[in-house]
Amino acid sequence: MKKQKKVRIIPLGGLNEIGKNLTVFEYGNDVILLDCGMAFPDDDMLGVDIVIPDITYLHKVANKIRGIVLTHGHEDHIGAIPYVLKEFNIPVFGTRLTLGILKNKLKEHNLINSAKLHNVEAGDFVRLGDFNIEFIHTNHSIADAVAIALHTPAGVILHTGDFKIDPTPIDGGMIDLARIGELGKKGILALLSDSTNADRPGYTMSESSIGKTFDNLFERGIGQRIIVATFASNIHRVQQIINAAVKYGRKVAVSGRSMENVLSAAIDLGYMNIPKNTLVDLDEINRYPKEKMVIITTGSQGEPMSALTRMAFSIHKKINIEPSDLVIISANPIPGNEKTVSNVVNELLKHGAEVIHERQDDVHVSGHACQHELRLILSLANPKYFIPVHGEYRHLCHHAELGVQAGIPKKNIFILDIGKVLELSQSTAAVTGTVPSGKVLVDGLGVGDVGNIVLRDRKHLAEDGIIIVVFTIDKASKQCVSGPDIISRGFVYVRESEDLMDSVRDAAAHVIDKCTGSRSMDWSTLKTKVKNEVSNYLYSKTKRKPMILPIIMEV
Amino acid sequence: MKKQKKVRIIPLGGLNEIGKNLTVFEYGNDVILLDCGMAFPDDDMLGVDIVIPDITYLHKVANKIRGIVLTHGHEDHIGAIPYVLKEFNIPVFGTRLTLGILKNKLKEHNLINSAKLHNVEAGDFVRLGDFNIEFIHTNHSIADAVAIALHTPAGVILHTGDFKIDPTPIDGGMIDLARIGELGKKGILALLSDSTNADRPGYTMSESSIGKTFDNLFERGIGQRIIVATFASNIHRVQQIINAAVKYGRKVAVSGRSMENVLSAAIDLGYMNIPKNTLVDLDEINRYPKEKMVIITTGSQGEPMSALTRMAFSIHKKINIEPSDLVIISANPIPGNEKTVSNVVNELLKHGAEVIHERQDDVHVSGHACQHELRLILSLANPKYFIPVHGEYRHLCHHAELGVQAGIPKKNIFILDIGKVLELSQSTAAVTGTVPSGKVLVDGLGVGDVGNIVLRDRKHLAEDGIIIVVFTIDKASKQCVSGPDIISRGFVYVRESEDLMDSVRDAAAHVIDKCTGSRSMDWSTLKTKVKNEVSNYLYSKTKRKPMILPIIMEV
Repeated sequence: MKKQKKVRIIPLGGLNEIGKNLTVFEYGNDVILLDCGMAFPDDDMLGVDIVIPDITYLHKVANKIRGIVLTHGHEDHIGAIPYVLKEFNIPVFGTRLTLGILKNKLKEHNLINSAKLHNVEAGDFVRLGDFNIEFIHTNHSIADAVAIALHTPAGVILHTGDFKIDPTPIDGGMIDLARIGELGKKGILALLSDSTNADRPGYTMSESSIGKTFDNLFERGIGQRIIVATFASNIHRVQQIINAAVKYGRKVAVSGRSMENVLSAAIDLGYMNIPKNTLVDLDEINRYPKEKMVIITTGSQGEPMSALTRMAFSIHKKINIEPSDLVIISANPIPGNEKTVSNVVNELLKHGAEVIHERQDDVHVSGHACQHELRLILSLANPKYFIPVHGEYRHLCHHAELGVQAGIPKKNIFILDIGKVLELSQSTAAVTGTVPSGKVLVDGLGVGDVGNIVLRDRKHLAEDGIIIVVFTIDKASKQCVSGPDIISRGFVYVRESEDLMDSVRDAAAHVIDKCTGSRSMDWSTLKTKVKNEVSNYLYSKTKRKPMILPIIMEV
Repeated sequence: MKKQKKVRIIPLGGLNEIGKNLTVFEYGNDVILLDCGMAFPDDDMLGVDIVIPDITYLHKVANKIRGIVLTHGHEDHIGAIPYVLKEFNIPVFGTRLTLGILKNKLKEHNLINSAKLHNVEAGDFVRLGDFNIEFIHTNHSIADAVAIALHTPAGVILHTGDFKIDPTPIDGGMIDLARIGELGKKGILALLSDSTNADRPGYTMSESSIGKTFDNLFERGIGQRIIVATFASNIHRVQQIINAAVKYGRKVAVSGRSMENVLSAAIDLGYMNIPKNTLVDLDEINRYPKEKMVIITTGSQGEPMSALTRMAFSIHKKINIEPSDLVIISANPIPGNEKTVSNVVNELLKHGAEVIHERQDDVHVSGHACQHELRLILSLANPKYFIPVHGEYRHLCHHAELGVQAGIPKKNIFILDIGKVLELSQSTAAVTGTVPSGKVLVDGLGVGDVGNIVLRDRKHLAEDGIIIVVFTIDKASKQCVSGPDIISRGFVYVRESEDLMDSVRDAAAHVIDKCTGSRSMDWSTLKTKVKNEVSNYLYSKTKRKPMILPIIMEV
C-alpha cells in the first residue's frame, strides 16, 4: 500500500535565482522542509532589506509539516527560518554550529524560547513520519555542513546542500564519499545537487591551500601590521589566520559584529583551537607593537558599514590604516559587489597600505564544487533522476549537461523552477502541477507589505523626485481659496530654480482657474488636469518626469 | 625667455575614477584640452543620466583656450564635448572616425553647424600657440585612435590615450612604436599613460585572435542562426564578424540604434570592407533561411532597452530567439554590469538558444595594454617624468610601480588627482596648486542642477517613500479647519494598510490639536512637531523611516 505513494518535491526557492533556498518534500501525510534561507534584494528592490520565499503553499499542508532539516548555517539556508517559525512552530534539525548560528538569529526575533531546536550530527538518522532522514558529512566554506538523504518508501532522495570535495580540509575530514557511494550502489532515486559552480571547469582548491598562502604572506609581512578580511562564518579560514598568527608570534584581535558573534559561538561550541593569550580585545591592541598584531575583520565585500570599510574611510573608532599595514582581503567579490570592494581597496591604498586581494594571490577558495567534482558526485550517487538545484538558469543548464555526461538519460533530468511540483515513484517522474511561489520582500518590520506598486513608486521617486501641487477649494463656492503651493523633493535644488518653480505654480494656477467655480467639475478630473499640465510643462523644460501629486483640501 | 616658462598639466577627469577623461595643458598664454569625456553615474547617483567634468576652471583661462585635441571616439573621451562647446566654441581636432562619431552627438545637441571640427591623421602636426601637437597612430578597441605628443618649448609631453600594442591589428598597422622610440631617444619630458589594465600581468591578445574564434564558432554553428553582440564602436570586431559571415555564405543584418549609427558612419568614411549584397535590412531577414543569417546587435552589457536584451525578454519587434540560435556575446561585462549580462544569458538559455560568453571561449579581447606592454612603452619613451592616468587609485599605483621597474626614479613619478596642477620645467616638477574639479551631474536637460541635497532626497525617497501630512489652518482663529490628510507614495500598499494610515492620521491630528489655537504657535515649529510625531510613530510600528512632509495651507 505505502509503496504506491509518490514523493513530491517542490522547490520554493533557490532555482533560477541565487539564495532563499527552500525545498519541500512530501510523502503521504508527511511534509518536511529542507533549508529555509533568505536572499539579498535585487538592485530594483529599492529599500528592501531581505527577500524570503513565498510560503503561501505551506498553509495548505500546515498540519502535515513535521520539521525543517538544515544543511548548514549560511544566511541563504537559514535566514528565513524566523519568518516561517512565526507561522508554524515546527521542530528544526541541524548540526551544532548550524544551530549555534541560528540561535543568534532567533534571539533577535524573540523566538529563542519558543523554537524547538534539535542537534544532530553527521551519521545520525532522524525519523519524521515516513521520512527517515540521514545527515551525511560534507565540505563547504562553513564547518558542520551536511548533505541530507531522505529515505522514503518510494526510494532514497539525496540533497547535497552546498558542498565541495576537500580531501584536506581544516577539520572534520573529507566529505563522506563512501556513504554517498554506498547509497548509490543500493540505488538513489533522485539526486538534488549544488549548481553554483557548474560553469567552472576543474575542481575547487582545498581550504588548506589558503594556509600556505597565509604562511607566505605572514613571512613577507614581518614588520607590518596584518589585517585580514574574510567571511565571518568561514571559521576554518579564521582558524588558519590564527594559526599563522601563532606561528609568527602575533596577537589576534577581531573587528566587526558578525565576526565577533560567529567566533564566540564557534569557541563556545569547541570548534576553534586557539592557544591561550592569543586573542586580545580590540580596545587593547595599542598595548602591543603594531607588527605583532593581526586583526581579523568583516567587510570583505566592501559592505557600507562593515569594519574594513570603516577603516578604509577613516571612520573606524579604533583602527587607523597606516602605510605599514598589510591588508589581505581573503574573499572574492560576490557578483554585484565588485565596485564596493574596489572602492575599499582604493581607499586603503590611499592610506599607503599594501593590499592583497583576489587578483594577486591565492587568498581565497570557493566553497562550491566545480565541474570535476560535480561529475564525481553524479557518478558516485548514480541516481535514477537528477535535479540540479541552487543556481540561475545558466548554472542549472550546465549542471544538467554534466548529468548527461555522467550517463543520466536526458529525460530523467529535470530543470525545475520554484513552485513546480515534481512527483516521483520508483519508476516514474513528472511535473504534475504548480503551487504559489515567489519573493516576499522584507522591509523593516514589514513582511510582504512592499509589493510592485510600492516599488514602482520608489523607483519613480528615485529617478526624478516628486512635485506636490496643493491647493484649497471652498466647498460652497467651488473656488480655489488658497494655493496652489508647489513643494518638491528630489527634483531640483529649489533655491537655484525659483523661476522654474514659479512657472510651475503659474501653470497649475491657470488650470485650476479654468476648471474651478463650475458645479459640474469633479476633483478627480481636476487633479488629472493639473497633473498632466504640470507634467508636460516640466518635461518640455527639463526632459524629466517627476512624480506629480496634486492634493486638494476642502474647506 | 620662452624657455623659462613651465608647462602646467591639470587633469580635470580620468584619475581616481573611470571615465570623463579631460586633461588641460598650459604653456604661457596657450591652453589646450586633451579629450573631453563623460562617465556613467555611480549607483548612488539616482536618476542621473551621465556625469561630466566640472569645468569651472576653464572659465578662468577662457581667452587662452586654443582647442580640444582628441585621442579617439569613445564616450569617455568625447561625451562631454557638447557641454564644453556650449560654453566655449573652440576648435576640435580629431581623426576621421573620431569626428564621424562626434558629429552624431553634436547633431543631437544642435551644435553641428556651429562646431569647428578639424580632421587630422596620424603623423600630422597641428600648431596651437606654443603647442606643436603631433598625432601618433596607436591600437585600441576603436579604429583611428592616436596618442598625442605635445611639443612645447619646455619639452615634449606624450599622452598615450587609451592604447594597446597589437602587432596584428585588423587595419592600420601596429601602434607607431618607432615614432615613440624616436621621441624617447630625443628626450620626452613627461609621459602620461593609460593605466586601465595596469593590474594585469602579461599582454593583451591581438584583435585578430578573435577572428580565429569566430571562424571556429561559425564552423560549429553551421545550421544555426548566429547572433553576435558586441560594442558598436569596435568596428574591427564588426568587420571580423562580417568576414566570418562572408566566408560561411551568410547575410548580415544589424540591430540596435548605436550599431546602425556607428556602422553607417564607418561605411561612409570607408572604414569597412563589406562585399555587395552582404548587408540586408532587418525587416528583410525573413526572406533568407535562418541558418544563412548573422545578426550583429548591441546589448553586450545587458543594457535594459538594448536590442539583445529585448530579444532575450521577447520584446524585440523583429527577432524571436529560438532553440536553433547560437548567441555569441563578444564582450566582457564592464564592472557593475555582471548581473544584467547574467540575466540576459539566463533568458536566452530559457528560449533554448546556445549562448557563448566570456567564460567559455576567447570571444573578447581588451583594448587596453597590460603590464608587459606598459613596461615596453615606459622603456621606449624613457620619460623624465611619469604620470599614470586613466584609472582608479589602485590602477595608478600599479602603473607607478611599473614605472619604477622601468627605471624611473620614484620622485619623478606623480600619482595625481583631478584638479591638481603639476608644473614642469626641463629640470623640475612639482604640484603647485589645486583648481576646482569634480563631477557635474546631467539629468535630462539639467546640467548641474542635481546636487547632493537632491540626491540625498532621492535616496531617502527610494529607501522608504514619502508620507505627506497636509492640513488647513484658519488664519484668523489659528484652528485646523481641514485635514490632516495623509498621503503616501512608496511606503506601503495603502489598501492593505488602512489601519496604519488611520493611526498616523490620529497621531498627527493629536499634535495639531494640542498646538493650534494659540497665537504664539509658529508654523515651522508645528511642522517639526508633526514630523517628529509621525516619524517616531511609524518607526516604532514598522522600523522604517519614510520622508515625512507636513504641509500647512492657510485660509
